[in-house]
Amino acid sequence: MQFAGSHILSVNQFQRADIEAIFAAAARMEPYAHRRRITHVLDGAILGSMFFEPSTRTRVSFGCAFNLLGGQVSETTGFEHSAIAKGESLYDTARVMSGYSDIIAMRHPEEGSVAEFAAASRVPVLNGGDGANEHPSQALLDLYTIKSEMHGRGGSIDKLRIALIGDLRYGRTVHSLCRLLSLFDGLTVHLISPKELRMPEEIVETMCNSGHDVSETEELESHIAHVDIAYSTRIQEERFGSREEADLYRGRFRLNQNIYTKNCEPNTVIMHPLPRDSRAEARELDNDLNANPNLAIFRQTDNGLLVRMALFAMILDVVEQVDSEARDVGWYTGSRY
Amino acid sequence: MQFAGSHILSVNQFQRADIEAIFAAAARMEPYAHRRRITHVLDGAILGSMFFEPSTRTRVSFGCAFNLLGGQVSETTGFEHSAIAKGESLYDTARVMSGYSDIIAMRHPEEGSVAEFAAASRVPVLNGGDGANEHPSQALLDLYTIKSEMHGRGGSIDKLRIALIGDLRYGRTVHSLCRLLSLFDGLTVHLISPKELRMPEEIVETMCNSGHDVSETEELESHIAHVDIAYSTRIQEERFGSREEADLYRGRFRLNQNIYTKNCEPNTVIMHPLPRDSRAEARELDNDLNANPNLAIFRQTDNGLLVRMALFAMILDVVEQVDSEARDVGWYTGSRY
Amino acid sequence: MQFAGSHILSVNQFQRADIEAIFAAAARMEPYAHRRRITHVLDGAILGSMFFEPSTRTRVSFGCAFNLLGGQVSETTGFEHSAIAKGESLYDTARVMSGYSDIIAMRHPEEGSVAEFAAASRVPVLNGGDGANEHPSQALLDLYTIKSEMHGRGGSIDKLRIALIGDLRYGRTVHSLCRLLSLFDGLTVHLISPKELRMPEEIVETMCNSGHDVSETEELESHIAHVDIAYSTRIQEERFGSREEADLYRGRFRLNQNIYTKNCEPNTVIMHPLPRDSRAEARELDNDLNANPNLAIFRQTDNGLLVRMALFAMILDVVEQVDSEARDVGWYTGSRY
Repeated sequence: MQFAGSHILSVNQFQRADIEAIFAAAARMEPYAHRRRITHVLDGAILGSMFFEPSTRTRVSFGCAFNLLGGQVSETTGFEHSAIAKGESLYDTARVMSGYSDIIAMRHPEEGSVAEFAAASRVPVLNGGDGANEHPSQALLDLYTIKSEMHGRGGSIDKLRIALIGDLRYGRTVHSLCRLLSLFDGLTVHLISPKELRMPEEIVETMCNSGHDVSETEELESHIAHVDIAYSTRIQEERFGSREEADLYRGRFRLNQNIYTKNCEPNTVIMHPLPRDSRAEARELDNDLNANPNLAIFRQTDNGLLVRMALFAMILDVVEQVDSEARDVGWYTGSRY
Repeated sequence: MQFAGSHILSVNQFQRADIEAIFAAAARMEPYAHRRRITHVLDGAILGSMFFEPSTRTRVSFGCAFNLLGGQVSETTGFEHSAIAKGESLYDTARVMSGYSDIIAMRHPEEGSVAEFAAASRVPVLNGGDGANEHPSQALLDLYTIKSEMHGRGGSIDKLRIALIGDLRYGRTVHSLCRLLSLFDGLTVHLISPKELRMPEEIVETMCNSGHDVSETEELESHIAHVDIAYSTRIQEERFGSREEADLYRGRFRLNQNIYTKNCEPNTVIMHPLPRDSRAEARELDNDLNANPNLAIFRQTDNGLLVRMALFAMILDVVEQVDSEARDVGWYTGSRY
Repeated sequence: MQFAGSHILSVNQFQRADIEAIFAAAARMEPYAHRRRITHVLDGAILGSMFFEPSTRTRVSFGCAFNLLGGQVSETTGFEHSAIAKGESLYDTARVMSGYSDIIAMRHPEEGSVAEFAAASRVPVLNGGDGANEHPSQALLDLYTIKSEMHGRGGSIDKLRIALIGDLRYGRTVHSLCRLLSLFDGLTVHLISPKELRMPEEIVETMCNSGHDVSETEELESHIAHVDIAYSTRIQEERFGSREEADLYRGRFRLNQNIYTKNCEPNTVIMHPLPRDSRAEARELDNDLNANPNLAIFRQTDNGLLVRMALFAMILDVVEQVDSEARDVGWYTGSRY
């Protein structure tokens, strides 16, 4: 695809070559994200950060990525007091707000709303999550993490063996990730969920049609025995009818150090889209895994910066200029990576 | 008036020469607002954006204008949790907060509050709306749009024929605009509103005393037949006692493409302070006008950037330096203007 | 102590030499805080401002201090919608969010929470208030103000005579200040409070053990007769069980110009951590003191910028580079200091 000036609304926009281009750009962002170098390539540019639904992690990650490229961030959060509450159409909001920024990152509780906004926007729009629908930058950072972790272990995305665990019905993250995995070859995919929270049929089919070996199960332990990645998810309480309904499934599949040691191959990577639910009744990923070097969950969020910087740089067409407007960091950074 | 270091609290501060000076400065801001050039003239300066009443559009527009001049924005929104809720006086808030910025843009739900704040502030304050009272930058952007649209049609503000339509009683925007129009010569003004929502007598008198030809009516179609500008407004629901009371007037005067074609001269400009109410029961400006090139409502919000940049630059006395700290935009912008 | 890379969690971290080092750095920040010069020493750095409890003044002051050093600010406020509400541990929040900034300023309603967060953070954390526990930068700005006001009057912190007035039980500000005063020599300290709101015994003891002359009383007027500083405080309504309980003490000790003239030595400095409660039933510091040049309350908040700039510069180890990345302010500033 052509990135300069494009909206990023769905993982369906991408072919394998696009993914590889994004990942190549992401890798070039490492010196900046890791605070060894600073760049001013987007000096003067403004990111409109519009979060009609709260999401601290995603909002701050997009903003930080833009700041790390030298740009400014203008944030709008919340909904109740907005012009939309006074009857303004999404079309009008998009026409107006797109005059106040050079690129927009947007989250909205309704499916399709970000695409509707983008159609009226005069600047490129990145979908930061629209209801249960899409969250493409999260899927990209997950895939980038898989590639990076496998690379460190002598593997690749092709031929990957992965288990997806938990709420596979409402978790848009795993939906988008599966669509991206369909672009690669020869995977073995274990879908581990309660029957009621199974992966949507259409996504399973897409993966099968790609030639992947896909199995669905309600049993955790034997299905994480021979995988490279165990990808756990939180019960998406906010997508259920009630807290009580969510409670039926919370804590059903728990991974802790004991289960890991007993069942998994050494070096099996543990992932999670975060936040993980640390309350006693949930704990899908136990805190006793924090000392396990294969726990990649914080490397995932770090990689989110790389991927979002790459998207900004590609859409605004400055990838080649990033390094030429750079210099070394001048303050104390310690050794945090 | 002397702009450097001054507060901007009311349109009553301006003489015609002041308006012309602001518009001359605004025109110089176009390359920056339209993302062809970037400037750093306010590098190091901080705008304190204090919105005690929500207003996404105005808040973001002020912030963007300051960013486009190279400055930083520090935002405070909401009220409930503020020190004012702990009994702090506006005087104290102003003394403290004015130490944290170089200039302040402020909105507050109470009439006169911004002036009270400004009296205690150590830095210049711009009124971004104080209750039903004033919103000078909105009036300036409306007038700038009128001038710019008329210029493109071979006309001017002098001798303008304009219809103001809708809630003329509570709409502070039209009040401030009428005060500014009183500084010009030979206008024909049609005030079209329900009887109960008529323009305040005092403002009508000011316009008559300026020699304008002013008529008041409850009838829309014949009164938009011979005007250069049809300026529609939203029912200011938040100023009414109840939603039910507002409902009595909502949707009373609707302008759509059919009515426009049937009644208006070609090239009649359509304006609105936004947000327009797109709900079925309102629709004072129908969406079918979106394709009409004379619909100037989004050019209005774009012009808001020019006017607010001009005010910042004049108050901080950097108009002449803007171009000397500038360079070309280095990222992909497409053709959005 | 070693400042580069350290967390600032408690005033107990500091020895007298540390205080003097901070104040020396703070003094060097004056040209920047007073808008005569601008510096870019932290160009490219990001402050994560995380206020899980609202505090406009502290949040904006930290942000402004960071901006004045040339850095960017990324803010997160509120709690209800955060990942913590979805069961995320403070450990996870800290691991993730510390990847998005170079240094963090944090406020949280629970005692000890900021230290817990800091233990998991990959970047330095400054405590901006954790419940009734600590607020070290406020204590430092108070002490800096005392030093600065006494210096102007030919005195010093050693041998200071000070009265602390009001809610000495819940006011964490006065607790932290007393701990710092314990590092100095030969003070006379009058603790003036309702019996039920007395200073905690342990803090009184620490001051006595430092050789200070400490007295506790319920009587205001005679105890402000021979002091250099009268430090008044607000009833911390939010720490009481109910508004009614707080009302028992509100307005008990009021200082106004009449009482000041009648009782105090000329040039007695009046301080307050702000916000002061200006409602009729409170008024611990009357507005009629606003014209009194010894009212130092707004010099306190101004000094907050100096102290917070100093902490940022020391922790990020750029104190010596501040001046070398500086230039004169280019916009109109008037004479506001």
